[in-house]
Amino acid sequence: MAELTLGEALFNPRAIALIGASADPNKNTSRAQRVLHKAGYTGRILPINPGRTEIFGDTAYPDIRQAPGPIDHALIMVPAAAVLPAIKGCIDQGVRVATIYSAGFAEMGEAGRAMQDCVVAVARAGGMRLIGPNCLGLVNVTDGVPITNNAAVEAETLRPGPLGLVSQSGSMMGALLSRAGARGLSFAKIVSVGNECDLGVGELAELIVEDDATKVLLLFLETFRDAPALARAARRAHVLGKPVIAYKLGRSDLGRQIAVSHTGAMVGGDELANAFFHEHGILRVDTLDGLVELPRMVMGRTPPRARRVAVLTGTGGGAAMVVDRLGSLGIEVVPPTPAIREAYSLPDSPLIDLPMGGAPGEYARLFRDLVASDHCDAVVGVLGSTSRLRPAQVNENILSVYDGSKPIAVFCAPQADEALRISDEAGVAAFRSPETCADAIHAYLTWRVPRVAPPAVDVTTAAAQVAGAEVFDEVQACALFATLGIEVAQAQVVTAPDQVRGIAGPCAVKLLSPDILHKTDAGLVRLHVEGDAAIAAAVTALLAMAAQKFPAARIRGVLVAAMQKGLSEVILGFRRDPEIGPVVMLGMGGVLAELRDSHALRIAPVELDTAWEMIGAVPELRMLQGFRSLPRGDVTALAHAIVNLSNLALLPTVQEAEINPLIIRAEGCGAVAVDGLVAFGDDHP
Amino acid sequence: MAELTLGEALFNPRAIALIGASADPNKNTSRAQRVLHKAGYTGRILPINPGRTEIFGDTAYPDIRQAPGPIDHALIMVPAAAVLPAIKGCIDQGVRVATIYSAGFAEMGEAGRAMQDCVVAVARAGGMRLIGPNCLGLVNVTDGVPITNNAAVEAETLRPGPLGLVSQSGSMMGALLSRAGARGLSFAKIVSVGNECDLGVGELAELIVEDDATKVLLLFLETFRDAPALARAARRAHVLGKPVIAYKLGRSDLGRQIAVSHTGAMVGGDELANAFFHEHGILRVDTLDGLVELPRMVMGRTPPRARRVAVLTGTGGGAAMVVDRLGSLGIEVVPPTPAIREAYSLPDSPLIDLPMGGAPGEYARLFRDLVASDHCDAVVGVLGSTSRLRPAQVNENILSVYDGSKPIAVFCAPQADEALRISDEAGVAAFRSPETCADAIHAYLTWRVPRVAPPAVDVTTAAAQVAGAEVFDEVQACALFATLGIEVAQAQVVTAPDQVRGIAGPCAVKLLSPDILHKTDAGLVRLHVEGDAAIAAAVTALLAMAAQKFPAARIRGVLVAAMQKGLSEVILGFRRDPEIGPVVMLGMGGVLAELRDSHALRIAPVELDTAWEMIGAVPELRMLQGFRSLPRGDVTALAHAIVNLSNLALLPTVQEAEINPLIIRAEGCGAVAVDGLVAFGDDHP
Repeated sequence: MAELTLGEALFNPRAIALIGASADPNKNTSRAQRVLHKAGYTGRILPINPGRTEIFGDTAYPDIRQAPGPIDHALIMVPAAAVLPAIKGCIDQGVRVATIYSAGFAEMGEAGRAMQDCVVAVARAGGMRLIGPNCLGLVNVTDGVPITNNAAVEAETLRPGPLGLVSQSGSMMGALLSRAGARGLSFAKIVSVGNECDLGVGELAELIVEDDATKVLLLFLETFRDAPALARAARRAHVLGKPVIAYKLGRSDLGRQIAVSHTGAMVGGDELANAFFHEHGILRVDTLDGLVELPRMVMGRTPPRARRVAVLTGTGGGAAMVVDRLGSLGIEVVPPTPAIREAYSLPDSPLIDLPMGGAPGEYARLFRDLVASDHCDAVVGVLGSTSRLRPAQVNENILSVYDGSKPIAVFCAPQADEALRISDEAGVAAFRSPETCADAIHAYLTWRVPRVAPPAVDVTTAAAQVAGAEVFDEVQACALFATLGIEVAQAQVVTAPDQVRGIAGPCAVKLLSPDILHKTDAGLVRLHVEGDAAIAAAVTALLAMAAQKFPAARIRGVLVAAMQKGLSEVILGFRRDPEIGPVVMLGMGGVLAELRDSHALRIAPVELDTAWEMIGAVPELRMLQGFRSLPRGDVTALAHAIVNLSNLALLPTVQEAEINPLIIRAEGCGAVAVDGLVAFGDDHP
Repeated sequence: MAELTLGEALFNPRAIALIGASADPNKNTSRAQRVLHKAGYTGRILPINPGRTEIFGDTAYPDIRQAPGPIDHALIMVPAAAVLPAIKGCIDQGVRVATIYSAGFAEMGEAGRAMQDCVVAVARAGGMRLIGPNCLGLVNVTDGVPITNNAAVEAETLRPGPLGLVSQSGSMMGALLSRAGARGLSFAKIVSVGNECDLGVGELAELIVEDDATKVLLLFLETFRDAPALARAARRAHVLGKPVIAYKLGRSDLGRQIAVSHTGAMVGGDELANAFFHEHGILRVDTLDGLVELPRMVMGRTPPRARRVAVLTGTGGGAAMVVDRLGSLGIEVVPPTPAIREAYSLPDSPLIDLPMGGAPGEYARLFRDLVASDHCDAVVGVLGSTSRLRPAQVNENILSVYDGSKPIAVFCAPQADEALRISDEAGVAAFRSPETCADAIHAYLTWRVPRVAPPAVDVTTAAAQVAGAEVFDEVQACALFATLGIEVAQAQVVTAPDQVRGIAGPCAVKLLSPDILHKTDAGLVRLHVEGDAAIAAAVTALLAMAAQKFPAARIRGVLVAAMQKGLSEVILGFRRDPEIGPVVMLGMGGVLAELRDSHALRIAPVELDTAWEMIGAVPELRMLQGFRSLPRGDVTALAHAIVNLSNLALLPTVQEAEINPLIIRAEGCGAVAVDGLVAFGDDHP
């Protein structure tokens, strides 16, 4: 018999074992069977329960090993301690994938995590894949195959539709099902991933993206656990013309903390998430309803060419609410073209104020002209009382004349359930609140194609420099930066005071040791030391102090470097995030920067265009780009330094690096790295 | 016959004239009459139309002068050009107040504004008050007196309720009516204010606040036109125990621009609006639905003692959405007390995770305990699938046991229309989206009682200094600051180089003239000039340059002041905003401050507690308050300087003042004003 693919075993199994199925209809563990029956599942349903020979009309088996094969999928609902034996039974039976509903694993702390790790190890050894544990299961709505105990799935009438959903929150699966349903939208495939012990959001997204019935993929995320797979899924979705929309928790520290304690996963900064979504062409919404109201705007579409939205409205106050919020999100509302303005005698305003009840056909014509016009990338129709009192006009004026050539959004200022319903039915995105409408438009207009990876740079020399390294001192770090193409301050290493000779100008004198951190705090750095005698004295003092305070440290000498002058100081950072992967960071240097977080972050490596974007995202750097009468700094050199540092992404053992400070000199005079560090990771040998 | 009060004439007139009433039922101008009939208005309805003797069963009159009196209220619906004659007719007839529906006034530009001014002048002279023009009228729902052409009012079934509404957007009147209605909430009094040529938001709010049927006042604002009256209304509302909730446009520049072009009013910064709401105890929501979903949380309540919210949830993902947003709004979620944690065996988490379907009565008991506990100021119940599938449980577990002693909010993660309905019916605030829920909780928890005005400070000496002044030079400005108690840099004014004698240390040398602005740009300031000879040379040069470049300017000499040293520079500002009134501003000095707007603003005068709040709102100032190993600055002196400058509010002719820079010295060493200006206004003689 032909082996099923993983996707087939997940969503179209020939037989499903329900391990721990209950015959008591009041128990949650009885629900999966009922739901399968109700959905008209045509494969075999195999309740596994040591105390029964039959449950709800299906033959029951005491052990999965005794049930007739082939069994492609098992839903495991036994207590946590009984999961491992159940998995072993599945392996013996040749089950391809198990969905583990049982809780009591990593989400409960260390003991649970250990037990979970054990389950995964056994399953892997047995060639079996896992969803969960602590998940609510999955549903193939397209073909009527629900593998879940979810009460919401049992209660709802599931009509097949175009949405895919992967959710890290089990309870939000039902919430999104009902919220989408109330908007006339339904699903093709739904998965609750639970603890993601094996199959995670990314790999499941990769599978669902290939599903023909799924046209848009929704993600409800609390954290990242397998970002590379999710990146692949998003890039594949782009190729297939399927937008991916994410709602992600963790915008606030408290939110992150709760998302974490709730799922037992790692913390990820929200900015990192934004960089990730941006990099891989994922749309991000900020409102819950945005997740179910945006899909109609983007289904079958690719990212816009520019970020211009035209607003047509019958209610000044209603439109102002949307536009006000768009403005605070940085989205430009474009006024009509002179031709349109003249044709419809419109006043000179970014909003186009035209009620539906005007001259017959006028609104519809104008609406069609806006959709056809090249001056905007999306059109919003803000509807006033007409949408509530004469909803049929929404059809006449908008829905029936809309050709779909550009995304449109309809926002109804009043409570206008019928107008929303007919918009939903016509497949037009309709919004219940000005905030959600602005959120969706912002998500669409800031949507970009996945970034193409920069062409490979030759890092052979740098790779040789770091080969086998476990720790670098400042001199080695700066040498690596120099190899990458970054200018570094000239310095000389002396091991005794009598080596100091003929150094001009004020110098920084600093102990050199890979084993002592925070040298400034330890008093092992002297600044503005001038003249051979003074420098030699500082060298003597530092060596003595280090020997006394840090007897065990390797002392490689004392670094003497001419003090650098420039217009501004920045910090350049590189880091290999455990989930997101390599990122490059640009921040202001100095104390003010610590008080007011001002930085930009991107997935590394980057090219020059992205480096310029990062520079533009740090307001303080405008100071160097022709602000008032201040001198211009060499921002071009900064952009190149960002690109060069980001190429550390190509050296897999480098875990973290920092240039602090990079001093930016006057225009044309470059930017120079004064100090820095490079750290190597255990995880990336 | 007893004269009616203005409130009675507005909301309970004995007779209403409909000037411009149409007999054509398809015309908007026919609607007011139908709406009055439908509402069962018991006073006399008097259509005024030169071409008819009867309209829809009511006797019509060609001119209001020929209609039988007394007529308390007229609704004017004639074209703009005919409004003035109509007003004259009203005056002749002794009409107390007219609502002008007609458009074509200030909202259309200068000519319209002139016509509007003329109408107001005539009405004032005739002792008559006006609402509008360009407004949709008003409704006394309590007594069934609608005076409006609004299609929404005609279409809706208006049940009397506890809300008052004053809206600067006419179309949002209907939108809010329907949105509130969908939540089972209804209104007592509604007014659309239009251009506010006479009666504005503030004065109308003052009237509605006194209305017994109105328990909460909602404001839909685009701008401020009569802030002092609105402040009085809010303070009176506080005394009467009636919360005032505002939604205000203008958070973004584009939003402000549109709000302005839409209504012909002045621009007001959003921060100014926040300061105003805060000062006068007005709750501000950021979402539209917050305006109709918050009232049940605050009705009959006063501001909370602290800002702590407890969250009880059956869905981790659902609660995280609310908590994440609360976190980004700066609101603290408090964990349960040890006693509650022990009683219910709760894990150590800020969220309380308890599904409704657990042990019978447990959820209800815990919910009651949280509402009774002193450790929190509000309780949020986040509901999962239960709210959709078994809505009656919401009643059993929350609504039926809630004693109202503390505000609660219910958020349903799924689409749960029935649970929302029964919550609405029980008078409990229920939220449709996590964003609106967080918005409302934030608005409630940051609600404060109106600030008590500081005790009067004696400004007799300062008042004498500014008496009759029209313009101040820097020396005079600094002398005024000194009188207010602010340390100013010692300086000497010389009118010839030979007066320079024995000035030690580096000096700033600056031309002194009240007629030359931007002296630095004009080259009339020299810094770091040291020694009598150098200073004398600078004095000569500046006097010569000024005489040549600015022959008409009054030259009062040259200011020579020792350069001041300190740890940081700030700017202190005072301004009399045309709408909001006096405000005091603290901002960072220097170039960085211009690149990254960092400042705090409050209504003036302020006391020390508010000054410290302002200092806390500028992150850069943490640098002076024990940051790393940096020296501490005299922030106490800064706080006193803020208070002292804010007392300019007590000198009504001072329009604007600025200290730039105020140099903050080390702790204990004070803060010194180096330069400044004071401007006097034409409007405040």
